[in-house]
Amino acid sequence: MSSPDRRTLIADTAIATVATSGLRGLTHRAIDAAAGLPAGSTSYYFRTRTALIGACYARIAELDLEDFDAGQPAPSATGRPASREEAAAAIGALLHRWLTTGRERQLARYELSIEAARTPELGTALHQAGLMARGRAAAALAALGAARPAEAAELLVAWTEGVLYDRLVGAMARTRPAPDPAELTSVARRMLDAVLAGSSGSPE
Amino acid sequence: MSSPDRRTLIADTAIATVATSGLRGLTHRAIDAAAGLPAGSTSYYFRTRTALIGACYARIAELDLEDFDAGQPAPSATGRPASREEAAAAIGALLHRWLTTGRERQLARYELSIEAARTPELGTALHQAGLMARGRAAAALAALGAARPAEAAELLVAWTEGVLYDRLVGAMARTRPAPDPAELTSVARRMLDAVLAGSSGSPE
Repeated sequence: MSSPDRRTLIADTAIATVATSGLRGLTHRAIDAAAGLPAGSTSYYFRTRTALIGACYARIAELDLEDFDAGQPAPSATGRPASREEAAAAIGALLHRWLTTGRERQLARYELSIEAARTPELGTALHQAGLMARGRAAAALAALGAARPAEAAELLVAWTEGVLYDRLVGAMARTRPAPDPAELTSVARRMLDAVLAGSSGSPE
Repeated sequence: MSSPDRRTLIADTAIATVATSGLRGLTHRAIDAAAGLPAGSTSYYFRTRTALIGACYARIAELDLEDFDAGQPAPSATGRPASREEAAAAIGALLHRWLTTGRERQLARYELSIEAARTPELGTALHQAGLMARGRAAAALAALGAARPAEAAELLVAWTEGVLYDRLVGAMARTRPAPDPAELTSVARRMLDAVLAGSSGSPE
């Protein structure tokens, strides 16, 4: 196995460990064992706990952006910009993914973020990922005719973060055990209509 | 000191401890010491770790709702319902409070919520608080002329949660070290305009 693959394996194992056992479970030794690697491997690639947490972050950001890009409606398929309906379905599908198969990664992200709030040098990767997400949301909203795409993206991204938080660990986490793509698409459509209200693009 | 006061003192001390040291710092013994109480006091009132965490939750929910109610514009002062401008200022002030003097409590809430995601019996207090917040937001939005106040409240509360998360521990936590009430009011006004778009109440 080449080094990049091994670094990725270690980061993925560490993310799964944090999601299941919390930060208390995150030790170099535990990751070696869970990844089936020789003792000392994790500390060879990531000497400190901060370096290991930084690697988890960077990997989470990479996977989140991959999901985001994979969920975008392809304009080439139809030869025209996506409609609000298509954009709402894409957001609904993304939320559904992060509430189900991607749940572990989001839980790990919360736990690691709180740790990072006490460890300032951990912030860069997370902040870069946040700016990229905002940039992509702004581009998608501009294509939908948003009058002020950056402002609309700020509202939309914060809302998305809040919906995920509420349903994964917050006040609504215990009321919707099986997230429903249609319901998520419907609430995403309401939010899209709200942030696009007053924009030039007519609702479809 | 009467029992209710002592229970509150213990919960407040536990919340501050979790905010500073994380869940790792939350032990019955540490809370006795930090609260200046005789050894054994915390376990007398809250036998288990789950009971102690539950008390933290209930106290956080109580304080958050007190802040919410204190921030509402008083209709009696003017004899007419609050304007969007007044409502945006109230939301901006609430966000500012929770990002500054109330920061500790919100950090503790995140940490405790993640623990609760692994401990289902902890969810009730949190969920009740979430429903109360939604109910109050819906009432305020109805007073502003929202056509579907419950739906608008769902968007607004999720957005509020996302803004707090983003700026306390998320992607934007390191870019705005000094939260600005005017900026928060301005972004709250944009969100209010968005969720009230298409409602009968005219923007003011």
